[in-house]
Amino acid sequence: MGADTSAALGVSEVSGKVAADDPGVIDLFAVLAYGEISAFYRLAEEAKLSPTLRGKVAVAKMAGAEMDHFKTLEQALAARGVDVFDAMAPFVRALDAYHASTDPSTWLESMVKFYVGDGIAADFYTEIADALAPEVSEVVRDVLAETSHSEFVVEEVRTAVAQNRSERDRLTLWGRRLLGEAITQAQYVMAQRDELTDLVLTATGDLNGIATLFERMQNSHAERMAVLGLG
Amino acid sequence: MGADTSAALGVSEVSGKVAADDPGVIDLFAVLAYGEISAFYRLAEEAKLSPTLRGKVAVAKMAGAEMDHFKTLEQALAARGVDVFDAMAPFVRALDAYHASTDPSTWLESMVKFYVGDGIAADFYTEIADALAPEVSEVVRDVLAETSHSEFVVEEVRTAVAQNRSERDRLTLWGRRLLGEAITQAQYVMAQRDELTDLVLTATGDLNGIATLFERMQNSHAERMAVLGLG
Repeated sequence: MGADTSAALGVSEVSGKVAADDPGVIDLFAVLAYGEISAFYRLAEEAKLSPTLRGKVAVAKMAGAEMDHFKTLEQALAARGVDVFDAMAPFVRALDAYHASTDPSTWLESMVKFYVGDGIAADFYTEIADALAPEVSEVVRDVLAETSHSEFVVEEVRTAVAQNRSERDRLTLWGRRLLGEAITQAQYVMAQRDELTDLVLTATGDLNGIATLFERMQNSHAERMAVLGLG
Repeated sequence: MGADTSAALGVSEVSGKVAADDPGVIDLFAVLAYGEISAFYRLAEEAKLSPTLRGKVAVAKMAGAEMDHFKTLEQALAARGVDVFDAMAPFVRALDAYHASTDPSTWLESMVKFYVGDGIAADFYTEIADALAPEVSEVVRDVLAETSHSEFVVEEVRTAVAQNRSERDRLTLWGRRLLGEAITQAQYVMAQRDELTDLVLTATGDLNGIATLFERMQNSHAERMAVLGLG
């Protein structure tokens, strides 16, 4: 395996540092899979806040894309002899807690959560994917694709906050809270799942690598907030 | 066009009686499209009643399939220069009324509605599709496919009603109500939309043809109820 060879050589910035049979891969697929399910139901629920049928349909399409991704992950786990439901069980609590603690009360909050939440997750998994064996990173990239659906929120949020300073301040705080809660829950998951933590450590190099990763994520978050006219 | 030729020849049981540019085709695609959206949101909502994550995921997959079908219809309408939202507007009230009048209060009612409601709709549109120009019937058949997702309900309902006579009686009445409400709303739609009514008349031959179609649908409904151990 290329992954084993590069690890043996002590090469650190090379794609494929994490072998395809790394035990953390099951956890990675599982947390992504429950993330898709949980996003699906949140999207379907929050779409009720949409004032228009167009908004509802845009959100329903995003939700539909999540289910396609779920099926990809379910198949990838099945190919490894693992039942997706068994594998997801350890991650239910943290992801449910993230969504419960960031329950939008308006359509604008909901849209910011689609866009910013999608972005935070995509940043994290994309960085990890760079270090995975090609057959694993392919699955991860596949399920991170199609996030373009959430682009529909940009124009609507920009317009709303340009006209209303207090709305802008409120949504700026909301965006910070989303990042904070996401990091809290990510840390909770890492503390519980040694295999996943080892995978992330291998992928990022070391604890310093993780710190740098979180810094880059914060920068990307700030950029996304700016795109929305927030921050 | 084959459709025009067979109409001119007075041939009645031939595929393609309804021309691809029949004005009713827009209505047909539009009512199907709003049906998908409205099924999507109902499925997502009713899945909350599922006692298990497996049930929730099965329902989420069904909902995801509805969105794929919606996209097919949206494209088919766009290819005819029609905006899906404009086209759907006349059908919102009837479909919302159907769902509001058949709001399940238990997971079993919900499952019977998935299975029986899917079946009623599929019967109706499949019969109509037989008489459409090939390029139109292809779209209709395409969006009626993948109903196999709702097969997951059969075993669960059969088991539940085999053990409980009063549950069986209750769900039998529920199934009758679903058929009744579906027919009521279909008639309401037909009364409002001349183009669609003309299309259905052309497809079925005449008023007698419609009556025969509804008879066949009632027979299929009775068969489906029997499969569930009901009726």
